[in-house]
Amino acid sequence: MYLKNAWYVAAWTHELGEELAERTILGTSILLYRKGNGEAVAIGNLCPHRFAPLHMGRRIGDTVQCNYHGMVFGESGHCVLNPHRGGVISPAMKVAAYPVLERNGAIWIWMGEANAADEAMLPDFDCYSAPGFKTIRGMMDVAANYELIADNLLDLTHAEFLHDGALSSEAITISKLETLEAGSTIWANRWCPNGDAAPVWSQIQERVMGVDPAKPIDHWLYMRWDAPGHLLLDVGITEPGNPREEGAWVFTGHHLTPVSPTRTLYYWTVVRNHGVDDPEIEAFWQGSIDYAFAVQDKPMIEAQQAMIGDRQVEDLNPVAIPADLAGAKARRMLSRLRTAEAKGEGRPPLGGAALHDLLAKTAKSANPVLPVV
Amino acid sequence: MYLKNAWYVAAWTHELGEELAERTILGTSILLYRKGNGEAVAIGNLCPHRFAPLHMGRRIGDTVQCNYHGMVFGESGHCVLNPHRGGVISPAMKVAAYPVLERNGAIWIWMGEANAADEAMLPDFDCYSAPGFKTIRGMMDVAANYELIADNLLDLTHAEFLHDGALSSEAITISKLETLEAGSTIWANRWCPNGDAAPVWSQIQERVMGVDPAKPIDHWLYMRWDAPGHLLLDVGITEPGNPREEGAWVFTGHHLTPVSPTRTLYYWTVVRNHGVDDPEIEAFWQGSIDYAFAVQDKPMIEAQQAMIGDRQVEDLNPVAIPADLAGAKARRMLSRLRTAEAKGEGRPPLGGAALHDLLAKTAKSANPVLPVV
Amino acid sequence: MYLKNAWYVAAWTHELGEELAERTILGTSILLYRKGNGEAVAIGNLCPHRFAPLHMGRRIGDTVQCNYHGMVFGESGHCVLNPHRGGVISPAMKVAAYPVLERNGAIWIWMGEANAADEAMLPDFDCYSAPGFKTIRGMMDVAANYELIADNLLDLTHAEFLHDGALSSEAITISKLETLEAGSTIWANRWCPNGDAAPVWSQIQERVMGVDPAKPIDHWLYMRWDAPGHLLLDVGITEPGNPREEGAWVFTGHHLTPVSPTRTLYYWTVVRNHGVDDPEIEAFWQGSIDYAFAVQDKPMIEAQQAMIGDRQVEDLNPVAIPADLAGAKARRMLSRLRTAEAKGEGRPPLGGAALHDLLAKTAKSANPVLPVV
Repeated sequence: MYLKNAWYVAAWTHELGEELAERTILGTSILLYRKGNGEAVAIGNLCPHRFAPLHMGRRIGDTVQCNYHGMVFGESGHCVLNPHRGGVISPAMKVAAYPVLERNGAIWIWMGEANAADEAMLPDFDCYSAPGFKTIRGMMDVAANYELIADNLLDLTHAEFLHDGALSSEAITISKLETLEAGSTIWANRWCPNGDAAPVWSQIQERVMGVDPAKPIDHWLYMRWDAPGHLLLDVGITEPGNPREEGAWVFTGHHLTPVSPTRTLYYWTVVRNHGVDDPEIEAFWQGSIDYAFAVQDKPMIEAQQAMIGDRQVEDLNPVAIPADLAGAKARRMLSRLRTAEAKGEGRPPLGGAALHDLLAKTAKSANPVLPVV
Repeated sequence: MYLKNAWYVAAWTHELGEELAERTILGTSILLYRKGNGEAVAIGNLCPHRFAPLHMGRRIGDTVQCNYHGMVFGESGHCVLNPHRGGVISPAMKVAAYPVLERNGAIWIWMGEANAADEAMLPDFDCYSAPGFKTIRGMMDVAANYELIADNLLDLTHAEFLHDGALSSEAITISKLETLEAGSTIWANRWCPNGDAAPVWSQIQERVMGVDPAKPIDHWLYMRWDAPGHLLLDVGITEPGNPREEGAWVFTGHHLTPVSPTRTLYYWTVVRNHGVDDPEIEAFWQGSIDYAFAVQDKPMIEAQQAMIGDRQVEDLNPVAIPADLAGAKARRMLSRLRTAEAKGEGRPPLGGAALHDLLAKTAKSANPVLPVV
Repeated sequence: MYLKNAWYVAAWTHELGEELAERTILGTSILLYRKGNGEAVAIGNLCPHRFAPLHMGRRIGDTVQCNYHGMVFGESGHCVLNPHRGGVISPAMKVAAYPVLERNGAIWIWMGEANAADEAMLPDFDCYSAPGFKTIRGMMDVAANYELIADNLLDLTHAEFLHDGALSSEAITISKLETLEAGSTIWANRWCPNGDAAPVWSQIQERVMGVDPAKPIDHWLYMRWDAPGHLLLDVGITEPGNPREEGAWVFTGHHLTPVSPTRTLYYWTVVRNHGVDDPEIEAFWQGSIDYAFAVQDKPMIEAQQAMIGDRQVEDLNPVAIPADLAGAKARRMLSRLRTAEAKGEGRPPLGGAALHDLLAKTAKSANPVLPVV
């Protein structure tokens, strides 16, 4: 059902402090905490003795004591203290230990075999920490399957209808969707030169770039998908023919962590190269994204899930349109990866290596500046 | 599970205005709206593209646009506009279209094969619009199977216990239940001459007819059932031997629309020939019926459903009493109709044609005035 | 799933007054009421006619009338009046009648074959009514399987962790768990001589016994378990070597009545031999027990159940520790009794007869006073 040999976002860095925290990921209850040196630890949350949740326990140094019968577990998942008479520790008294990485403000957890954990499978989100950019982060609890959310992100034509035009323009509507695949990475790119900006971007055009919003601009939307559900939209506007870095440039990150087949924790970012110290610009992007995600996308995707119910969307014979192309590719890729995992086969590499070459073919601006990702 | 080739009440006429409306009927989500000319339309509510609910969309003339990706559907259920690049419309891009009738203040929907829709299968509720009568309408959302509600209505002896005597009398208790069948229609009739009126009717006897409530009256209760769950109680009091139209005459209509096996939208009416312009009489009937339905019947039927749970009442070996006769006949008829439908066989006609002859045999008043139905 | 030929607590004596009451026990809805002479009656709550719940009905003398169609049932469960025309009563028109005993302030119900009901299977809780003792009673509705609660009670080492030390001491921690079995009864006993009292008991040591809490005391905790879920903790402190009745002596009773596999009504008592007329001591024990049960045990056991979900704890391969010994014995005994019941075999006697001999072997105080139980 889920791809297990993969990195998921378990939490934002700032969400995990000194307290014990619990997250249910892929239906499994996970205990998260930080050691004294600040390193994040993720282990199974169910005490193997009688299945009391460890997150109701207490920290003892870098270990955690179950608050029911006092078993103490360390970051390896092994019981390190049995406080009961005798104190013998069965080798079976252990919980799973999950490899964890902390990178670019997120705590990433590997949900499969620990010895298969592979940093090379972590998609590149270095733009979250790129100099000259400022990152806003949020999280939404969505009552829907994570693939329905990926569908939404991989077809931005929905903006014209669901986002009431705020994020759409005629230039986007008439643009051609170009999809690319490299390794297990998929891009869904739209290049919209010399047209009107979408209304949200018109405000940026005027307020940030100081350009009359009636004037045409070059607009680009490049969406990158990596399994199991990590998306990065490279989006911005620049004056026609100008290099992109002279324009207003934004990345939005989307990390979909399944709680269950019908519930997803959706971690998102907005990363901008403009007004990085300007609280009004900060509030503008925070408000625009909150509204688009929480007020427009979330209710629709949750309604879609409610209509689909316990069924699989593919089993309902959906009628495809061309705009579904990238979403369909991502679903097929994920399905292939799950099948390969079930057969014990390896996973193709991420498409990072081939990125620049591939993007160069589609980056049609007169002076293309390739994204930093 | 459900009879599909049948008319159900989808809404009262006054419930459907300019807004898009959703009703779940027989487990299927239905979109209801009115065209510019006022005609009601019912089509499937799930966009065939990705199953977003159309009722979250918007009206465009007499069509409806999905608010997720912009597909537009007309009253035939076919997609009439694909706003995406290319604009090709797959023949599969369509939703079901349900035949609809608007009659006597109700919007009736045919849930089966559209080409099998047959107005002759619509039971006669013309009394809702009869001259000299005034109709009150309401709706209750009941957490119970619709057949449990029909059971309730087809055995009015429950009034003695559940309605605390307000709607019962010794004359009703000792009356003989006469059941009649004609086509697929069933009657459960009680003729109670020259006895005390039930307490609610005693008030009408005094306030409307101006007759000392200590005096005996003729009382009749004729309940008609039609599949799948349309009932009409023809009930009233008149001075002994007098024609019925000289007395206080009421019809109560009951339309049971299954949402799921354990939830029903119960549309009801009270139609009276007296005090049609008198707000006190209006309030009297509104209050009496609200109390009887919402405070007395609903909690009992919902408790019954809670005790039965997911099981079928027949599988629990209920112990029958003679008063169950009409309810049992209705359950058997509905079961026969469902079996016939599953086999592709036709449905027997409604019993309207044979009504007057049959009723004449049981209408025992000295001067029987046959009901208008 | 449940042991049926056994006594369960249906209610405390004071909970059942003149009103009809409903309790769901082992998944079965039961009607409880008192006859005019005060005797408690327990019969099936579902009217066999159409499964309306009888507890929504009304008392008529020592019988109960269903409020839907008026069937009247007596304490034997048979219908004694059919108020409908004809009045014939089918022999099938009856509900189950459950043997009931009222003893020591509790109403006990036998959920199995009525003719197998055996008072000898009722564990001895005469201490609730013992002279010189005062009993406090309560009830908690716990969202967990009853065997998880028995596990909790049969391993008091959890006090050190879950009860934050209030109910634990080093003397208890280092004491040896002695388990005894006689018939189907199991004891889990700890004898902790000449040590510190647990903090809650230290307060009793000072306030009730007038002894400096820094001085050592003899402390005993003897837990008795009887199927299906009746536990009695005989616990107290006395000055070293002194007879127990000269100390502060408490019994806590625990009666676990399954509502469903994941919900239990937990009836509890605290019975003390000290400060029986002192409202401060009463409040002290009431508060200590409320806090320990409702604030500490209940959330942990419910969290444990939530983690286990619909699964059986045994199927999850729990890793045992020595402190589980008594709980494991109780689970095995209950499993044996269920298997024997399913095969139609008899049940071993309660261990009451062998109690004094067995306890004498483990009662290590210089002057053992055997519990009154």
